[in-house]
Amino acid sequence: MAQKPSLPQGTRDFNPLMVQRRKYLLNIIEKVFKKYGFMPLETPAMEQLSTLTGKYGDEGDQLLYKIINSGDYFKKLIEFQSKTSSHEEIDQTYLPSVDGKVANLDAKISLPFIAEKGLRYDLTVPFARFVAMNRNDITLPFKRYQMQPVWRSDRPQKGRYREFWQCDADVVGTDSLLNEAELLKIYDEVFAELQIPVIIKINNRKLLNALAQHIGAQDKFIDITVAIDKLDKIGSDGVKNELLKSGLNETQCASILTFLALVETNNPLQQLEEMLGHIEDGNLGCIELKKVMQFLSTLQTKNEIKIDVTLARGLSYYTGAIVEVQANAGTFKSSIGGGGRYDNLTGIFGLPGISGVGISFGLDRIYDVMEDLALFPASLKANETKILFCYFDEETQQRALELCAEVRANGIAAEIYPDITKKIGKQLEYANKLSIEYACIIGSNELASEKYPLKNLLSGVQTEVTKTELTQII
Amino acid sequence: MAQKPSLPQGTRDFNPLMVQRRKYLLNIIEKVFKKYGFMPLETPAMEQLSTLTGKYGDEGDQLLYKIINSGDYFKKLIEFQSKTSSHEEIDQTYLPSVDGKVANLDAKISLPFIAEKGLRYDLTVPFARFVAMNRNDITLPFKRYQMQPVWRSDRPQKGRYREFWQCDADVVGTDSLLNEAELLKIYDEVFAELQIPVIIKINNRKLLNALAQHIGAQDKFIDITVAIDKLDKIGSDGVKNELLKSGLNETQCASILTFLALVETNNPLQQLEEMLGHIEDGNLGCIELKKVMQFLSTLQTKNEIKIDVTLARGLSYYTGAIVEVQANAGTFKSSIGGGGRYDNLTGIFGLPGISGVGISFGLDRIYDVMEDLALFPASLKANETKILFCYFDEETQQRALELCAEVRANGIAAEIYPDITKKIGKQLEYANKLSIEYACIIGSNELASEKYPLKNLLSGVQTEVTKTELTQII
Repeated sequence: MAQKPSLPQGTRDFNPLMVQRRKYLLNIIEKVFKKYGFMPLETPAMEQLSTLTGKYGDEGDQLLYKIINSGDYFKKLIEFQSKTSSHEEIDQTYLPSVDGKVANLDAKISLPFIAEKGLRYDLTVPFARFVAMNRNDITLPFKRYQMQPVWRSDRPQKGRYREFWQCDADVVGTDSLLNEAELLKIYDEVFAELQIPVIIKINNRKLLNALAQHIGAQDKFIDITVAIDKLDKIGSDGVKNELLKSGLNETQCASILTFLALVETNNPLQQLEEMLGHIEDGNLGCIELKKVMQFLSTLQTKNEIKIDVTLARGLSYYTGAIVEVQANAGTFKSSIGGGGRYDNLTGIFGLPGISGVGISFGLDRIYDVMEDLALFPASLKANETKILFCYFDEETQQRALELCAEVRANGIAAEIYPDITKKIGKQLEYANKLSIEYACIIGSNELASEKYPLKNLLSGVQTEVTKTELTQII
Repeated sequence: MAQKPSLPQGTRDFNPLMVQRRKYLLNIIEKVFKKYGFMPLETPAMEQLSTLTGKYGDEGDQLLYKIINSGDYFKKLIEFQSKTSSHEEIDQTYLPSVDGKVANLDAKISLPFIAEKGLRYDLTVPFARFVAMNRNDITLPFKRYQMQPVWRSDRPQKGRYREFWQCDADVVGTDSLLNEAELLKIYDEVFAELQIPVIIKINNRKLLNALAQHIGAQDKFIDITVAIDKLDKIGSDGVKNELLKSGLNETQCASILTFLALVETNNPLQQLEEMLGHIEDGNLGCIELKKVMQFLSTLQTKNEIKIDVTLARGLSYYTGAIVEVQANAGTFKSSIGGGGRYDNLTGIFGLPGISGVGISFGLDRIYDVMEDLALFPASLKANETKILFCYFDEETQQRALELCAEVRANGIAAEIYPDITKKIGKQLEYANKLSIEYACIIGSNELASEKYPLKNLLSGVQTEVTKTELTQII
């Protein structure tokens, strides 16, 4: 019984050309990470759910992929639940318990009975978990890069996938702003090499915090951040509405809009100082931004680096600098990278006092931009085979196999057509479809003469060569 | 509230040195795959459960990791189930249905309500699914390689992990035995380059099939295969017991043991022909083995390639050649690779008549063997940083940063110590712990002289160099 196969929504296969192009991106990003002293780390796809939950906000928790426990946990749970005596009322005595919590119809409480593991949602939390677990074996400051897929059950749309790759570089164990500057310089170098024009935006969570204090709404810090984060989508009127809804008054809203309007200023540092410098976090935020910009001028960046006070970032763990990279060409203007400083992330895992800062490249979105702008080198091909050996019968197949082995022994990618039953035309069709540059057809004449016809399939030119010349020419 | 973080059982982090070593293995395997004309493919971690189930036997189905559906499927299911009126009896009218199947306490039947997706169990089935879905876009024969993790909820033990990497090369759309020979040659080349001594074993499922026919027990083919597969663990007496248990008689068992004893013969082809040549599959199996060995003698292998009649392989989809690679040194003798020919795998997905053959490298086991035998090159290091720049204050930091940028601009991996508050001793300690070869300490004297002290931390030798010389020396 044949199945009609399909892929889970939001996931994709990568055919050979796509893989080659993705590797091209990964290689460039990795090369720059290494040049700045970052070391590779890889963590498992599955993490304990307890490691993941509560780190990404409520929305993030919702988007975690959860894995059903091995064994009969599920069956046990629903068996107990089927023993309840009425539709509405559940007899708690029948229900199993974990850590003192009793299973019930609330999916959150029942969850541990059926799932203890989840797929990683980003690379930062697994990294913080790694640092906490390996505190005695790592040298601080610890600079690591990590390039792996992550999974989010978000609604798929253009540029948003359920399985996608992040390429992260983080430093932990140092609060020096030199790290912020070097990480931004890494963005600058990678996108310059990829030839994607970008704007690199930087802001500081301390300024947003000072803003909340400034208007006497420190308790509304998260609401304010969330509202500002939507500015691009809903405009300043929309932001104002959101703020009013969360209980701010007109005066408070007006201050926030004044703050946001500073995005139009080329260098808003002076105005920020005037507005928020009297608050400790405001003063610190300004000093930090200034210092980072100063380091960056020494490092000489190629792309525009812009202080953008409207940058808020969704993730809740950021405490200092926040950054975002926006592609600045073509139709696709959305974020292709982001990051920031987090002061307390390893603290959640029992290792307090370790500040960290990191950036992330969104591989799949960068891929889409590269494709939109036709920036992938034309030299990237699905295969790397240089020559196909063709033949007529068992005897010529034997010679073709010998020659193919000889070419490969010299490190050159080569193929011999596998099927002896297929005519030469069919064999050459294979070479053409795969854009293989050379073909060498071994007939009975060649067996005796030991000279072989080497045909360049692109130019059509054919030459007679010896075994030694064969390898030299290709 | 601090959590004590942990990893799911059977999964591991890979620290920088481990990642570098794994990349060393991956690069060699990939290089050889490419040399033989294979093209890269990547498929998503998650597949539809319908794609995965029923392909790996009952045991395999048990070991699949299943992912809970997004939304409230789980809650819906248990809500319905809680509406049942007695402990034993479930009112079917309350239960939801999918594809005409009604949910109940049987975990198998309830499964689609809570999980439609699973993590891939190997790379062969996703590949077959890809071929069936992309039949119009690929050129046959299609040679692809794929190097990705797979997940199995097997009991963890030495050499067995729940997340592990496979490196596969498969050809589909050709039944030429040249493919078998080339794939075995790939094993030979990779393990020769890694310097792992191996025995490459080859057998043919057709011979096992002929054996079952020969003793009049064709209906017991799977039982016979499963029993033979355990020979290593339970010995020939154990195999006999298993066979008796599955209903074979003493005479049938004796024939099977005679067959298995051929493993002691250096070249068992003649005896196999005598024993099974009168059966079509037996004859074919012998012809195929002979032809593969003949191609291999042309290709000149470095490792022992052995016809092993006791090789059975666990997976149910193999129909022709089966192969396995065993490390032949150290304490760790178990399988580090395996594969075979499958005639009907894409047929399950609606694309019949496409024969395929493939091999798989077990990356994690190869890693363990390499470590056991101390075969990893000593040159592999956690980091690739060549030089660390140290400094005393803001002014010298500024110069250090300029020099560091200069070195990096020449493509050399370099670091500047991030924390201005740390003394030089602490900065150099960092370089030593990371085995960074050079350090350059910028003091106030260097600012004026523009000559910099370059210290080789391995030899202790220090020289004075200009900016230009700095890059040249490292």
